[in-house]
Amino acid sequence: MTSPSFAQLPAPPYYAVIFSSLRTDHGSDAYAPMAERMVALAQHQPGYLGAESTRGTDGFGITVSYWSSLDAIAHWRANAEHRVAQEMGKAQWYEHYELRVARVEKAYGKRN
Amino acid sequence: MTSPSFAQLPAPPYYAVIFSSLRTDHGSDAYAPMAERMVALAQHQPGYLGAESTRGTDGFGITVSYWSSLDAIAHWRANAEHRVAQEMGKAQWYEHYELRVARVEKAYGKRN
Repeated sequence: MTSPSFAQLPAPPYYAVIFSSLRTDHGSDAYAPMAERMVALAQHQPGYLGAESTRGTDGFGITVSYWSSLDAIAHWRANAEHRVAQEMGKAQWYEHYELRVARVEKAYGKRN
Repeated sequence: MTSPSFAQLPAPPYYAVIFSSLRTDHGSDAYAPMAERMVALAQHQPGYLGAESTRGTDGFGITVSYWSSLDAIAHWRANAEHRVAQEMGKAQWYEHYELRVARVEKAYGKRN
């Protein structure tokens, strides 16, 4: 059985946006619905391939989204609704975040 | 204040190994010490730059380790003690994992 947590991706090359973040203690009420909305919105962007995301109980999380091209990433980054969420994230939700854009060159996995 | 969860990295380019995994229910006693040992061992490998890691309460986790070159990644992958851990992971600890090797081209972040 496939876990819904894993992205189903084509063969490389493709691009990854690695977003690591530490949540603040505040703004939780607004955060969860906005985060869900961003996942749903991203899925409808051109060039979106998939995403994987997790957060520990310490508030530190990693989300990796996968895209067909750098143009697709730039397009998503400039999305108006996404920009509002980005500003909310900077101002309220994240104590610290790091974002890295990478070109995936090799991929392999194993499912038991 | 810097969170210990974030890797302190040089300017790109560098390489990322994105390892996403779903833990099995068994082998927990041996897993945590081995995972800690692998973190400590990786830090002493040539070309190691840093790592970020988190796992949710659902058992799904993402670890991203950062390296100076593909050679450094290949060297770490072939490390004898690491190979034993890899085999244990395949056989016992991970129900499913995906491993992606990527070249980081851009990076930015924000700390409040």
